[in-house]
Amino acid sequence: MSAGWLSIVGLGPGDAALVTPEVTAALAEASDVIGYFPYVARVAPREGLTLHGSDNRVELDRARLALELAAKGARVVVVSSGDPGVFAMASAVFEALEAAPKEWRDLDIRVLPGITAMLAASARAGAPLGHDFCAINLSDNLKPWALIEKRLRLAVEADFAMAFYNPRSKARPEGFARVLNTLRDVCEPERLILFARAVSTPEEELRVVPLAEATPEMADMRTMVIVGSSRTRLIARKGNPLLYTPRSVPEGTA
Amino acid sequence: MSAGWLSIVGLGPGDAALVTPEVTAALAEASDVIGYFPYVARVAPREGLTLHGSDNRVELDRARLALELAAKGARVVVVSSGDPGVFAMASAVFEALEAAPKEWRDLDIRVLPGITAMLAASARAGAPLGHDFCAINLSDNLKPWALIEKRLRLAVEADFAMAFYNPRSKARPEGFARVLNTLRDVCEPERLILFARAVSTPEEELRVVPLAEATPEMADMRTMVIVGSSRTRLIARKGNPLLYTPRSVPEGTA
Repeated sequence: MSAGWLSIVGLGPGDAALVTPEVTAALAEASDVIGYFPYVARVAPREGLTLHGSDNRVELDRARLALELAAKGARVVVVSSGDPGVFAMASAVFEALEAAPKEWRDLDIRVLPGITAMLAASARAGAPLGHDFCAINLSDNLKPWALIEKRLRLAVEADFAMAFYNPRSKARPEGFARVLNTLRDVCEPERLILFARAVSTPEEELRVVPLAEATPEMADMRTMVIVGSSRTRLIARKGNPLLYTPRSVPEGTA
Repeated sequence: MSAGWLSIVGLGPGDAALVTPEVTAALAEASDVIGYFPYVARVAPREGLTLHGSDNRVELDRARLALELAAKGARVVVVSSGDPGVFAMASAVFEALEAAPKEWRDLDIRVLPGITAMLAASARAGAPLGHDFCAINLSDNLKPWALIEKRLRLAVEADFAMAFYNPRSKARPEGFARVLNTLRDVCEPERLILFARAVSTPEEELRVVPLAEATPEMADMRTMVIVGSSRTRLIARKGNPLLYTPRSVPEGTA
């Protein structure tokens, strides 16, 4: 059996200028690229490369296919948008690996990092994640809603800035409305919220509003939501204001 | 006055293959590069480029110099390692901007994201940040120790995986020992901890230990520490085991 390998890579948020050279090199050597259709579509076809696009919500099938092909000697790249380790394919591949034949564990498996959505959105808006923060996946496909609610309340108590992945989908239109209600319960109405849609693509749209003005419709499947900490501020200027969280917290705060 | 600009960029964790093409392009157009000595040393000198290396802990001076040069028409790149918006120079520049002459607010200022240390470390180890997580700067230079302690306890209660930046320095040798004590107070002894030192450089070292075996000496200034959630697991294999956090949490958990 020839030396197959599997690299689980991040393509970044959309712009080719945000793909690392490491990921570009892995794609250039691949025999097979596997992932959700729109991400696979970001890889240029070429001779000797098979593109395996698949639908959303079949992460484990996709992961098993990737392992199987690598075990047969293929040079396999699994693509995620953003970073593969943040609410993306890396954990799915490891879940599949645990359920797979034991000898597959010794395959050459690597994870190659990418620019994750929250950091692309943060950069575009200023630096809202410039102090302690957390990242929460708002999808309740894979965890109970009560746990999301609990984490939101604890994160606000800790005064973390918060980055929300998957805030809203067609299958869960009401979830993000519940999140906003929870936030209204525990945060001041002036709390700043960034809605960053399709960052680094031609459809990019940024909007910063105080919590009091935030509505569920401001987020869709392509939106990253960042809720500031109590210390996050805006610098007004011509064009988009700058949203940032200062590095320091005064003594006596805890 | 000519059209000066200021880009605050992330150089990633060390390896040139982890620098985005966007950042490489900004550096190619710069007239001035400003940053902490070891980061500026990662930029190749060339004619027409002035390198301004400075010491640690002078972030605001550095930020003011960057703004001043850009206001005079220079093409300025401020470099951070990792991502500039995560415990790095972007927030420092915005703090300086708020204190600067009002007209500087309309300068062309951009933040260009980079691969931040926790995602580089996570990728190398597997996918420990594959579920909800938080990032905490353990330095108490700019915030009270009591706040760090409070955040640790709340993050454990939320069952976030936790990425710790700046776990230990010569100036604060005892801080990380206190962090480990707090963790022992609230986590089970089997809780998995990753110590990832100098990821993507020739000095890279990775170690995963249960909390019961973790000691303060396992971290230094170049170490990223990632504490798993209660569900983070290891997959044993030849060579380094894979550390990952599954995507799902069973119903009934909250």
